[in-house]
Amino acid sequence: MAKLVECIPNFSEGRDQAVIDGLTQVAKSVPGVTLFDVQSDPSHNRCVYTLIGSPEGIEEAAFLLCKKAMETIDMTRQTGAHPRMGATDVIPFVPTMDITMEECVALSKRVAKRIWEELKIPSYLYEDSAASPDRVNLAAVRKGQFEGMPEKLLLPEWAPDYGERKIHPTAGIIAIGARMPLVAFNVNLDTPNLEIAQAIAKIVRGSSGGFKYCKALGVMIEERHIAQVTMNMVNYEGTPLYRVFETIRMEAERWGVRIIGTEIVGLTPAKALIDAAEYYLKIENFDSRRQVLEYHLIGE
Amino acid sequence: MAKLVECIPNFSEGRDQAVIDGLTQVAKSVPGVTLFDVQSDPSHNRCVYTLIGSPEGIEEAAFLLCKKAMETIDMTRQTGAHPRMGATDVIPFVPTMDITMEECVALSKRVAKRIWEELKIPSYLYEDSAASPDRVNLAAVRKGQFEGMPEKLLLPEWAPDYGERKIHPTAGIIAIGARMPLVAFNVNLDTPNLEIAQAIAKIVRGSSGGFKYCKALGVMIEERHIAQVTMNMVNYEGTPLYRVFETIRMEAERWGVRIIGTEIVGLTPAKALIDAAEYYLKIENFDSRRQVLEYHLIGE
Repeated sequence: MAKLVECIPNFSEGRDQAVIDGLTQVAKSVPGVTLFDVQSDPSHNRCVYTLIGSPEGIEEAAFLLCKKAMETIDMTRQTGAHPRMGATDVIPFVPTMDITMEECVALSKRVAKRIWEELKIPSYLYEDSAASPDRVNLAAVRKGQFEGMPEKLLLPEWAPDYGERKIHPTAGIIAIGARMPLVAFNVNLDTPNLEIAQAIAKIVRGSSGGFKYCKALGVMIEERHIAQVTMNMVNYEGTPLYRVFETIRMEAERWGVRIIGTEIVGLTPAKALIDAAEYYLKIENFDSRRQVLEYHLIGE
Repeated sequence: MAKLVECIPNFSEGRDQAVIDGLTQVAKSVPGVTLFDVQSDPSHNRCVYTLIGSPEGIEEAAFLLCKKAMETIDMTRQTGAHPRMGATDVIPFVPTMDITMEECVALSKRVAKRIWEELKIPSYLYEDSAASPDRVNLAAVRKGQFEGMPEKLLLPEWAPDYGERKIHPTAGIIAIGARMPLVAFNVNLDTPNLEIAQAIAKIVRGSSGGFKYCKALGVMIEERHIAQVTMNMVNYEGTPLYRVFETIRMEAERWGVRIIGTEIVGLTPAKALIDAAEYYLKIENFDSRRQVLEYHLIGE
């Protein structure tokens, strides 16, 4: 049984290729860690790394990347379209195989502690690692951005979770936390009526009374002349894809509207789809971790 | 992209632990090959190895195991409940990742050729490697067993695919071939009427006009007092699980019978379930090999 964690650190540099190359070199240097993907965007002035590896390897890689970013990115001179508050801006840890959310939360706290102790960069814990509900959401934590942080840190309710009430002079402050993987799931309707997609999005999304782990918007797909419910499923175990799909089907009937098809954008864990197969095929007592061949081939 | 092949060689020894240990040692010795499982049965007097690895590694491991079996198993003294015709009785190769059936057929032929050239053991090619339809089925190929093979090999239609028309004196003859992975899929009905399960089994199985890659029987599950359609899905791409499931649901309605639940026995490739999720969730343009996270974590 191989424990695997995904880590997707975001850094506030998307223009200087030498800085990005330096981070890439560090990302590739840690045993037990595979660098999956690097994406950088000059207008956002930001780069995003996707790493997968053992908990120990990921813990070390996250720290070393943060150290490298501190040494090579100066936030006092950084500008870009994307909101940011630190050289390393955010470090999410995602349980990927044979590891619990609790273990990933503990891992995130060890990393935050070490970053403070050795680099003197403070951090907020967010998502599943958050100490209070108002720190769960990254946008709320980052509000004020790098320039506003010195002031924000002095507010009674915004002491950092690790470190003192002042930013690192050039590296700022970091959001660190564990979260479930996100599945981008879109449902296409056989109507060009945007309002129907918007009404359905409101029904299924957690923020307006729907499924807790579903974020949804109604949008137009102009080239196909159809409306779409576009969703981020932020915890496919708590809110399975098939349940939202069936709810959309049921609600769409009120308008005489049908589902044409759906899309999964980018990566998904196999489990998000296996859960749907289990439901529709009525599979009893299925232990996917033991019975799905591919799980046995990972990390050996 | 890592090419992976599964190989499940069967040997005619299930009693002498020293012989089994010798085979296990060989199975573990080849780089690039993981020994997944060893099962032996004294009454069958047979052992079954499950190996997964690179095509090159599997090719080498299959040959070396066959050589070891020739050196340590004497078919002139072998008895057991399970039909058999050789010390190495059958060697199936199963495409597992990023490899086509055609490549596995070619691999099976290279192994059969080398076994003849270096060990002087003849072989029949079966399943997808078979040269003619009457050699596809293992039971037909093995009919006559070890004792009847010298005579069978002289029949005009039963020349071996590799080697001469006579068995190896102590190792016999081997069935070698490529085949799709098998998924054991059972459907439980809310009736104790065995005849209904038998009628449905006849409808869905290929041999009586149903789905080509479905083998099915109706059986009683005495402890639950229900009838079951028990199936081997021998090619889940050609005959997907969901299609057979929906056909059983539709046919069962004729008797007012419903599906209570289903079972997958043992291992299944993730793809057999992902295909069902794609169908029921109507996912458009899904490329599982690229979009399912776990595939990227295998064999790196």
